[in-house]
Amino acid sequence: MEPFWTIRALQACRKKAQPPFQGCPVHREIPGNPGISCMTGQERSEEKSECVSLSPMRETVPALPERVCVFGTGDLGRSLGLRLLQAGYSVVFGSRRTHSSSRLPHGAQVLGHAAAAQSAHLIFIAVQREHYDFLVPLANQLKGKVLVDLSNNLRKNQYPEANAEYLQSLVPGAEVVKGFNTLSAWSLQNGPSDANRQVYICGESVEAKQVVIAVASKLGLSALDRGFLSVARELEDFPLQLFPQWRLPLRIAIGLSAAFFFYLLIRYVIYAYVTQGDDISFRIMVSLANQVCPIVSLIMLSLCYLPGVLASILQLYRGTKYRRFPNWLDHWMLCRKQLGLLSLGFAFLHVLYTLIIPIRYSVMFWVTEHTVSLIRENRTTMFDTTTAWHDDSYLSLGILGFGLYVLLGITSLPSVSNVLSWREFSFIQSKLGHLTLLLCTAHTYLYGWNRFLSASTYKWYTPPGYMLCLVLPSVVLLLKLLLITPCVDRTITRIRQGWERGADQRNPKDSQPLIP
Amino acid sequence: MEPFWTIRALQACRKKAQPPFQGCPVHREIPGNPGISCMTGQERSEEKSECVSLSPMRETVPALPERVCVFGTGDLGRSLGLRLLQAGYSVVFGSRRTHSSSRLPHGAQVLGHAAAAQSAHLIFIAVQREHYDFLVPLANQLKGKVLVDLSNNLRKNQYPEANAEYLQSLVPGAEVVKGFNTLSAWSLQNGPSDANRQVYICGESVEAKQVVIAVASKLGLSALDRGFLSVARELEDFPLQLFPQWRLPLRIAIGLSAAFFFYLLIRYVIYAYVTQGDDISFRIMVSLANQVCPIVSLIMLSLCYLPGVLASILQLYRGTKYRRFPNWLDHWMLCRKQLGLLSLGFAFLHVLYTLIIPIRYSVMFWVTEHTVSLIRENRTTMFDTTTAWHDDSYLSLGILGFGLYVLLGITSLPSVSNVLSWREFSFIQSKLGHLTLLLCTAHTYLYGWNRFLSASTYKWYTPPGYMLCLVLPSVVLLLKLLLITPCVDRTITRIRQGWERGADQRNPKDSQPLIP
Amino acid sequence: MEPFWTIRALQACRKKAQPPFQGCPVHREIPGNPGISCMTGQERSEEKSECVSLSPMRETVPALPERVCVFGTGDLGRSLGLRLLQAGYSVVFGSRRTHSSSRLPHGAQVLGHAAAAQSAHLIFIAVQREHYDFLVPLANQLKGKVLVDLSNNLRKNQYPEANAEYLQSLVPGAEVVKGFNTLSAWSLQNGPSDANRQVYICGESVEAKQVVIAVASKLGLSALDRGFLSVARELEDFPLQLFPQWRLPLRIAIGLSAAFFFYLLIRYVIYAYVTQGDDISFRIMVSLANQVCPIVSLIMLSLCYLPGVLASILQLYRGTKYRRFPNWLDHWMLCRKQLGLLSLGFAFLHVLYTLIIPIRYSVMFWVTEHTVSLIRENRTTMFDTTTAWHDDSYLSLGILGFGLYVLLGITSLPSVSNVLSWREFSFIQSKLGHLTLLLCTAHTYLYGWNRFLSASTYKWYTPPGYMLCLVLPSVVLLLKLLLITPCVDRTITRIRQGWERGADQRNPKDSQPLIP
Repeated sequence: MEPFWTIRALQACRKKAQPPFQGCPVHREIPGNPGISCMTGQERSEEKSECVSLSPMRETVPALPERVCVFGTGDLGRSLGLRLLQAGYSVVFGSRRTHSSSRLPHGAQVLGHAAAAQSAHLIFIAVQREHYDFLVPLANQLKGKVLVDLSNNLRKNQYPEANAEYLQSLVPGAEVVKGFNTLSAWSLQNGPSDANRQVYICGESVEAKQVVIAVASKLGLSALDRGFLSVARELEDFPLQLFPQWRLPLRIAIGLSAAFFFYLLIRYVIYAYVTQGDDISFRIMVSLANQVCPIVSLIMLSLCYLPGVLASILQLYRGTKYRRFPNWLDHWMLCRKQLGLLSLGFAFLHVLYTLIIPIRYSVMFWVTEHTVSLIRENRTTMFDTTTAWHDDSYLSLGILGFGLYVLLGITSLPSVSNVLSWREFSFIQSKLGHLTLLLCTAHTYLYGWNRFLSASTYKWYTPPGYMLCLVLPSVVLLLKLLLITPCVDRTITRIRQGWERGADQRNPKDSQPLIP
Repeated sequence: MEPFWTIRALQACRKKAQPPFQGCPVHREIPGNPGISCMTGQERSEEKSECVSLSPMRETVPALPERVCVFGTGDLGRSLGLRLLQAGYSVVFGSRRTHSSSRLPHGAQVLGHAAAAQSAHLIFIAVQREHYDFLVPLANQLKGKVLVDLSNNLRKNQYPEANAEYLQSLVPGAEVVKGFNTLSAWSLQNGPSDANRQVYICGESVEAKQVVIAVASKLGLSALDRGFLSVARELEDFPLQLFPQWRLPLRIAIGLSAAFFFYLLIRYVIYAYVTQGDDISFRIMVSLANQVCPIVSLIMLSLCYLPGVLASILQLYRGTKYRRFPNWLDHWMLCRKQLGLLSLGFAFLHVLYTLIIPIRYSVMFWVTEHTVSLIRENRTTMFDTTTAWHDDSYLSLGILGFGLYVLLGITSLPSVSNVLSWREFSFIQSKLGHLTLLLCTAHTYLYGWNRFLSASTYKWYTPPGYMLCLVLPSVVLLLKLLLITPCVDRTITRIRQGWERGADQRNPKDSQPLIP
Repeated sequence: MEPFWTIRALQACRKKAQPPFQGCPVHREIPGNPGISCMTGQERSEEKSECVSLSPMRETVPALPERVCVFGTGDLGRSLGLRLLQAGYSVVFGSRRTHSSSRLPHGAQVLGHAAAAQSAHLIFIAVQREHYDFLVPLANQLKGKVLVDLSNNLRKNQYPEANAEYLQSLVPGAEVVKGFNTLSAWSLQNGPSDANRQVYICGESVEAKQVVIAVASKLGLSALDRGFLSVARELEDFPLQLFPQWRLPLRIAIGLSAAFFFYLLIRYVIYAYVTQGDDISFRIMVSLANQVCPIVSLIMLSLCYLPGVLASILQLYRGTKYRRFPNWLDHWMLCRKQLGLLSLGFAFLHVLYTLIIPIRYSVMFWVTEHTVSLIRENRTTMFDTTTAWHDDSYLSLGILGFGLYVLLGITSLPSVSNVLSWREFSFIQSKLGHLTLLLCTAHTYLYGWNRFLSASTYKWYTPPGYMLCLVLPSVVLLLKLLLITPCVDRTITRIRQGWERGADQRNPKDSQPLIP
């Protein structure tokens, strides 16, 4: 939906304007102190301690708010200014139109670009890249200043170099720091409790980055230094990404669904039409969907646990945990959570599709028809306890498996996994996860039951879908069973604790990790 | 349930008492330094740097903890004191009964009110408003001190002026800051990870507020300055509010449910009784509920997406995004999330009511009756493939719609929406949201199917409920379809990027926003 | 699954190395300033202000990053080093093998242990306890330094004393602070937004702890001082715990399930076999499970609300809220959330087990059999409106109760309960919670309906399961009803606001709490 900054920005802000520059003239008379307020917190405290030691009225001289400057009076600039004011900063907006400050937060000052640049050491550039050229004539005023480039682009690779690198090339005398660009005007106005607190910065100057880290911390954000300005492009691409970690799992899900849909379409609908002339195409909507969903769900659940098993085997084979996994395995392991959640989605649909079975027209028709034919043909059926046992066990295993599935899903919610200790999280995701896989696999085996050996199951010599989907989970469970046999498990545990095969003669003393 | 402060406060605290005033005498000898420890972090570092420069033993003089004072030894005062101790402060409690400190956290000091007030620059007032008058005789000691008013009232408008304003009027020489009143003793003891980290403060003095912001930050909280002391009433009303954003959506939900309940009661139950003399009142409990729920759910889902569409049309009509929306639209947009979640709740009930259909006595009776009558009257029914297609499609669309509904609900959990980038969040809430609306509307149209044109549908010349509830979603979907046609979409995108119709001759350079 | 630190640690770090010790020689010439960079933030600012006041070029001397030292180059040491670098610190690794720094984050320096210890005031010990003895020869260099013990053990009570206490005994001259041990290498690398931000520390020296608190805050963590070094064992046991708060509720759940399972097994399956010779053992899988689940769920829900009611009665009896509850009640109250969530889990299984009833083979067989017998025996059954009312009400109450149940579960998610005010949270958990209990109890009473007085219900003179499970919720609801009668409620409210019976003559002025 439409973000809706403009109104709230003005509602939330201070009702009276603060007198700008209050007390400043006094400070300015202190010799050797030309640029008051143009310093970071650390620098300020130096400055203050110095002047304070000259004045006996130390107790009464209040801590003056630091001044920061914001270039750009768009949504983001205004929201950032409001937030800085709320965090106790004195804010100066740099604008070409210094009179039209009606939309700016009360308490902020508006100056021309040159005056604004002169007044503060830290300048946020909340202007679109196309307008950066207005900074070129300000090169003198910006010399030595910290410029924070907040800009984003509309799409990836829009420009040959990153915006921050372009800014640095325009104003070589300034210290450009890229950062804060993942913040929206919305999240700035509503406070970090409603948004991600972590922001990334990068830049050439360690000192400039420390200034920005300090300001971020005062705004309630946690800024992480990602390195030099060459990382800027990566940071600028960040807000443009659309579920990068979900792409591979989604493609797998769609691919598997499509493949099994057509396979089952041929095996059931087309087979029935070709061999018996029956039109059972209506089954596509529910029956076929209810076969595709559990098949894809089980395959994806086993794909979620397969890479862990493979990694263990690789570590066992290599005899160390300090060698990097191949790239494909690395990528695979990083999208296990997404694989699992998609698998849960398919399982959820499978449950709903199963539960509506008795209210479907075709099922109700068939049940009535069956009863009517029993009467008309005067047949009787005997209650078969084995079938009852089998049917109820199959359903019960499915329910328990789905219950655990949902539990796994809930514990993967960020707020839940955050309150778990590492041992608790790994207990749930590994122990309960494999138990879920076991229950769901057993559920599918019981579904197949005695049809595995019946020739009529193999229409056109093809196995049914549930048989195909059992291959992968069976392999994963067998390998896992192998890995948890005591002797293998002991070796893996030692490897995970830092032991290296053939490395005993070396002295690996302090390279041993603490976390098993 | 009952919060249970008292016990844990004492369990969690330090086991040995720290010697109070340790090292203080030495410092006190430094001239011009009367009120040591009565300063904020910034002031302290000045103070230290000063004395340190006089002494050669800089490395060994430890950083003394700052001293803060807490008036009031109730639950909140004790919990705050404990928390301040844990964050590294030295804490002095001001109390009339200085000997009965058995309930106070170990490591804290207890002094009389006057002595306590003298010992620190920052004083937390954790006392109920009715007892504020004990502060009047302390006016001298409180002069220039920062008083943080933590108080809350039992109900709104309990007193003519805000507690903080009353406090300021009693002690005009002090700098009153309202704040921290949203914290409970419970959340203070259990740390900010289990509670909201964001606290609001207000007050006249910028310096006093900065002192409080610094302390909050050390406690792991993020304090936001909301302005001058006149805002205090608003902050004091904050903990008394009970779902303010849910009120309008809840009223809409209850109003719609009641209206449709009586409408359907008349159309089904009373109509059947009047025209055929049938008593089908038992249908109220499940059948009627299962009609009211989906109707209200669909209407509320479309009410959730209507304001966004209206706002787009308004922006398109005005040719700018910089003009404020009318108040009603503003309010409506702010409660879209609540509308959507209530709608999901009704959909959830609809799903449950639908799934229990086959285990209802009346349904089982009717099914048996139907079979028996088929036999007795020797009728046969033919399987109708069209009906099967229609019925399965209708169910399948409902299931897919509900699946997406649940996905929307999960992504609106704070912890999930926080890890999404703005683009991802808007993709889910806008694109998938409208798809959900489309699926649910199609589900309802298919439910109606060929009954729209049948005269028997219109009992007493009134349309059935599902027909009424289709009006709004159809309108929303049509308008949305209009808005995403390429030419309209292009104009809206430009407006959202800051373009203004008829504003091209002006130079809007740096007023352009960065976030589209 | 396997945490996978090693790769990402190196990917995320800086691409160019910083020149170590840059600018340091200049500073070293300042007299009386031997250990530059070996200080905390506060000390640094002193140091800087001092040298700065000697030099006129203050503006151009940049804020040098503080230096911290990390001993140990395992996963945790490397991740911590990377994180410290990202937060703007200069990092020195102490290692025996100073040349093999290939796995360390770029930008970090590697020195021998002695040199590294000398270079910084704060030293993180990321080494396993068994290797602590290498620190003994460094006693001189470590004198006065702050050592942060990050170590964890593999199991509880592995060693006679806490690791941190052992470290302190080895290096008595240093100030040992235990802490950060709840952080994993994984959470350090992925930032605190994906992990718990709260860390606990303890130690003897207040100053040393303040140094560590300041560093934690720069890393985006919130460190809480838990007291003296004697608490270290508790902190070291923290990461080893496996759901400590879930143990009692889980045991109750398992105990109740087992008890009712065997009770019902005897009453239904064995009773049927003994008295009628029927083998209905297949009912174990679904029918019996579907009786155990709702019974355990209802009992646990009432166990969740019983302690609150008992606590109120105790407060009423004692006439004060300032006396500690007995230990058993305290423990019980602390696991109410877990009791409630387990109860919800059983309710969820009950819903699923109920919804699959119509697709079970045995049910379908019985329904067909019933219809067939109606025809064959030429019987007719009359539709009973009372039964229809009863059946639908019973189902409807269950659905509404489950809906509220799910709502309670959602609001107990940490991220949801964090955005609720205390009043909102207590409204949902207390008011809606008791309403849920009422609905579920009514659902069960309606299930029993007219069977309570029928003799055939009491097989072998035992009451059915649902009757047994009604005892506790009925008691809780009756007691709650008593407590919310106006006169009782008024007294409780006064007690919760701090009023004490018989304490009116004393002057409890400022000991009154603010939060009712």
